[in-house]
Amino acid sequence: MTFAANATLADVGEFGLVDELASRFSYGEQVLVGPGDDAAVLAVPDRRLVVSTDLHVDTRHFRRDWATAEEIGHKVAAANLSDINAMGGRASALTVGLAAPPDLPAAWAVGLADGIAAECELVGASVVGGDLTSADQVVVAVTVMGSVDGDPVLRSGARPGDLVALCGRQGWAAGGLAVLARGFRSPRKLVEAYKRPEPPYAAGAAAAAVGATAMIDVSDGLLADVGHIADASGVAVDVDSGAFELAEPLQAVGAALGADPLRFILAGGDDHALVATFPEGTVLPEGWLRIGVVAEGNGVTVDGGAWEGPTGHTHFR
Amino acid sequence: MTFAANATLADVGEFGLVDELASRFSYGEQVLVGPGDDAAVLAVPDRRLVVSTDLHVDTRHFRRDWATAEEIGHKVAAANLSDINAMGGRASALTVGLAAPPDLPAAWAVGLADGIAAECELVGASVVGGDLTSADQVVVAVTVMGSVDGDPVLRSGARPGDLVALCGRQGWAAGGLAVLARGFRSPRKLVEAYKRPEPPYAAGAAAAAVGATAMIDVSDGLLADVGHIADASGVAVDVDSGAFELAEPLQAVGAALGADPLRFILAGGDDHALVATFPEGTVLPEGWLRIGVVAEGNGVTVDGGAWEGPTGHTHFR
Repeated sequence: MTFAANATLADVGEFGLVDELASRFSYGEQVLVGPGDDAAVLAVPDRRLVVSTDLHVDTRHFRRDWATAEEIGHKVAAANLSDINAMGGRASALTVGLAAPPDLPAAWAVGLADGIAAECELVGASVVGGDLTSADQVVVAVTVMGSVDGDPVLRSGARPGDLVALCGRQGWAAGGLAVLARGFRSPRKLVEAYKRPEPPYAAGAAAAAVGATAMIDVSDGLLADVGHIADASGVAVDVDSGAFELAEPLQAVGAALGADPLRFILAGGDDHALVATFPEGTVLPEGWLRIGVVAEGNGVTVDGGAWEGPTGHTHFR
Repeated sequence: MTFAANATLADVGEFGLVDELASRFSYGEQVLVGPGDDAAVLAVPDRRLVVSTDLHVDTRHFRRDWATAEEIGHKVAAANLSDINAMGGRASALTVGLAAPPDLPAAWAVGLADGIAAECELVGASVVGGDLTSADQVVVAVTVMGSVDGDPVLRSGARPGDLVALCGRQGWAAGGLAVLARGFRSPRKLVEAYKRPEPPYAAGAAAAAVGATAMIDVSDGLLADVGHIADASGVAVDVDSGAFELAEPLQAVGAALGADPLRFILAGGDDHALVATFPEGTVLPEGWLRIGVVAEGNGVTVDGGAWEGPTGHTHFR
């Protein structure tokens, strides 16, 4: 780094820090013009761009006393990269805006950039541009861009008779959050899953290739997000609670906190697992687990009945 | 609107408000999949995407007691659309993230969306996606995407002997800000210019078409941004202070505040005028004004000497 270890954003200044941050990123061949001009220029060979944006707010989406800057960088990048995954696409580029108080350590911003860069490398995406400004609270704004080979897989294509399947760890991050909220640090695997999710980045394109009819990434909560598919498709979904593997760390945290571990699975959202629907009889790609069926009607049921527990998270309420 | 006039974000909730906001936007034929899924899909006919991102923070970039939500929507959209203009491109799509306290009136968010939508219509761009989340402070994160016909015009192409030219109102917004900061409301034209800039949206592509060698939009301050061209191009620029028209409202505010109106022009940034360099002898498109020359060396001078006043704005310092 080009500045002292204890320097703040105010010490380093906007332009000094921008140069340092830009130097942490690598640029793939899709980047025709990288950071440093009024705009970046990105190659879009197939003439269609998949794009999504998310805001990540300190104390709402992450806590700086719970995770390192690198971990938070991984987490915010993963949340956005997962949105492209859920369309059946591949991410190619990110823009990142950072708003932060002037007394934020500059090293924190550099750590955030390192985490974002490392997560992007998992899928071959580049950070092509950004913005840096002062604010009362740390806010990270990420826009992700990518491509799809065939048609994008929307939320609206589920049809009665389709099967519902899940890919990726589910409920682990919610279990980790419950542990951290009580001031504990273990089971360590769950805490790590919360701090650094591992979205199944190859699973979206694989699902699209075998004919997924609808898909979403689990970010609000499994039942809430299955509900988004049901609403957008005009169908009902029944989830089979016996389909899920109750992994040992989930059982342990359930016992420790006096909670049904199934609640973490059904209402948890921070793992960025994928849920998709497929025509009945589809041979599911590796890693996908059948968890339910689509029927005529509307709404989401569990084992044929109403689910009385939480279904996920919503803002402002 | 689908909710009471005095409803807050907490009353309306995330999903109710997202639906209302999405209904305020119109979608051009470039929008293949609009808001409401994990990601939007945008047509990119010429295989190259120009992209830029900016954060706009309450009390830093706008003040809710100085301007209406619609005016702030116009202002934040204009700042981003101008970045595509400065590459010689045309904007086609925006994503918008809004972080806000739960007690923010929902009508303010709707007004912001209306202002953004109206500014986008000036250039034929669509809002294709967004995010809505809670935070301590209002932050608007905008990413703008667009296209260029030929090569993008970068900051780095200025060559010794080029002429330097300006297009658009310059210094008016800075004059308006000075007025508002003193608690005044007139000259009204300057206050309006600050609250609702009018970037010269057609000027960037026109400059590119006649061979502009470098270009930037004036957002940090005229001399600061000319300095960015000089630094990126490895050249010196001399600005001729006699080239500028000292418009009547600028003279009035200078007299009222005891300030040289030239300072608003040389250090002001919120008008989103364009500065570009062209080969000597270029017939400038309509609206462009010659304001200086490029020479060997580095740095920016005014009338051949150092400028002792401010050159623009920087964050954190």
